[in-house]
Amino acid sequence: MRVRNKPWASEFLQENRHIAIAQPSELKGKWKEFFGNSNPIHIEVGTGKGQFLSGMAKANPDINYLGIELFQSVMVIAVQKVIDAEVDNLKLLNVDAAVLTDIFEDGEVDRLYLNFSDPWPKKRHEKRRLTYKTFLGLYERLLVKGGEIHFKTDNQGLFEFSLRSFSEYGMLLTFVSLDLHQSDFEGNIMTEYEEKFSNKGQRIYRSEAKFQNEPSE
Amino acid sequence: MRVRNKPWASEFLQENRHIAIAQPSELKGKWKEFFGNSNPIHIEVGTGKGQFLSGMAKANPDINYLGIELFQSVMVIAVQKVIDAEVDNLKLLNVDAAVLTDIFEDGEVDRLYLNFSDPWPKKRHEKRRLTYKTFLGLYERLLVKGGEIHFKTDNQGLFEFSLRSFSEYGMLLTFVSLDLHQSDFEGNIMTEYEEKFSNKGQRIYRSEAKFQNEPSE
Ligand SMILES: C[S@@+](CC[C@H](N)C(=O)[O-])C[C@H]1O[C@@H](n2cnc3c(N)ncnc32)[C@H](O)[C@@H]1O
Ligand SMILES: C[S@@+](CC[C@H](N)C(=O)[O-])C[C@H]1O[C@@H](n2cnc3c(N)ncnc32)[C@H](O)[C@@H]1O
Repeated sequence: MRVRNKPWASEFLQENRHIAIAQPSELKGKWKEFFGNSNPIHIEVGTGKGQFLSGMAKANPDINYLGIELFQSVMVIAVQKVIDAEVDNLKLLNVDAAVLTDIFEDGEVDRLYLNFSDPWPKKRHEKRRLTYKTFLGLYERLLVKGGEIHFKTDNQGLFEFSLRSFSEYGMLLTFVSLDLHQSDFEGNIMTEYEEKFSNKGQRIYRSEAKFQNEPSE
Repeated sequence: MRVRNKPWASEFLQENRHIAIAQPSELKGKWKEFFGNSNPIHIEVGTGKGQFLSGMAKANPDINYLGIELFQSVMVIAVQKVIDAEVDNLKLLNVDAAVLTDIFEDGEVDRLYLNFSDPWPKKRHEKRRLTYKTFLGLYERLLVKGGEIHFKTDNQGLFEFSLRSFSEYGMLLTFVSLDLHQSDFEGNIMTEYEEKFSNKGQRIYRSEAKFQNEPSE
């Protein structure tokens, strides 16, 4: 998701350092301390404009949420949503998923969400998909033992790839819906992309997959 | 699949004992001998009217096929198809999947096909689904190590259940298509149900899953 470059974006982030964390790697291993409680920590990788996490943060005040977003120009919109939602259990990190293990200690995160991740449909780009095995390797490290990845997408090819990728990594599939909005799944919170694609009549796919073993060193 | 009871059915099967094997349990451990060659043995559980296997047998003369079908009244139609197809690498067994291990020695089968298995949508009937863990336990025993189950269905609920069931059993998902007829999968041979449902515009789902460990005793 690219939005026009916003010259005022970094200034806006500067002004909102209580939401857009400036030096997240300094908080590695100290996120519970930072939040000031021992609630579980759930992160979303590729948060985009933040609708999903702000909805989740409102619905679940006893969970701390962190949204990871690569683009500053997108993240400012998420920051504004956090301000509007008036929640203090949701913070945003303007970093690349590739550096997640610099930001979280092993086992520091309780759950990881991926929503409508970029599909990278070309085979030669598969390493960039956020469900590729190298990313699963990062997630496994920062998640607690038995930690889960909850994944939604409208993209059939990415979903097919991801189910295989989870399985090949040795993860356990504990939930699969091939048409979320026609299912009896309760409490779904829609993301921006989910609204857009389901309004066009596209099916939404959803899975939950669980790491089974001790993270490999 | 129920078709009207056919009084002539058992007579017809009697006349075609070279195709409709009379006492399959007597051939346990001797199927290669029976076929007179060492080609791989692929079985389909719930063969129905036999269109899939007769197509496969024609396309793959170096594989021996066995179709397992519960209902005599359905199997006679499959027998007629084998006669018409003039193939000698396809035989049919009028037995219940539940007795598979009486018919095959451990590791005697190289691959197992399930096509459009009865969905048994009610939760209280889940044990009857041919991808339920007790059936997977039977299949694991009769399949070679690393043996695969190839599964097609139009039924969304059964496919969702089956992906989870394969995963929970410890199987590896090696192929997933959420819309087989729009994919680049080659050499698909349609079953009777597949033709019927795809003509109605329904998507066809397909997976391949592999047993990973030694069968448990
Ligand atoms: C297609 S959008 C989906 C946004 C949102 N999750 C939704 O469902 O509406 C994907 C988002 O992931 C972000 N993203 C892609 N790769 C990333 C990475 N390596 N690290 C962090 N964010 C990334 C993109 O900038 C974009 O905002
Ligand atoms: C819905 S039909 C599908 C037939 C065929 N595979 C197709 O795709 O056209 C399911 C078939 O499985 C057979 N079947 C169901 N349970 C069975 C069992 N336990 N053992 C053997 N066959 C069974 C039924 O009799 C029926 O013919």
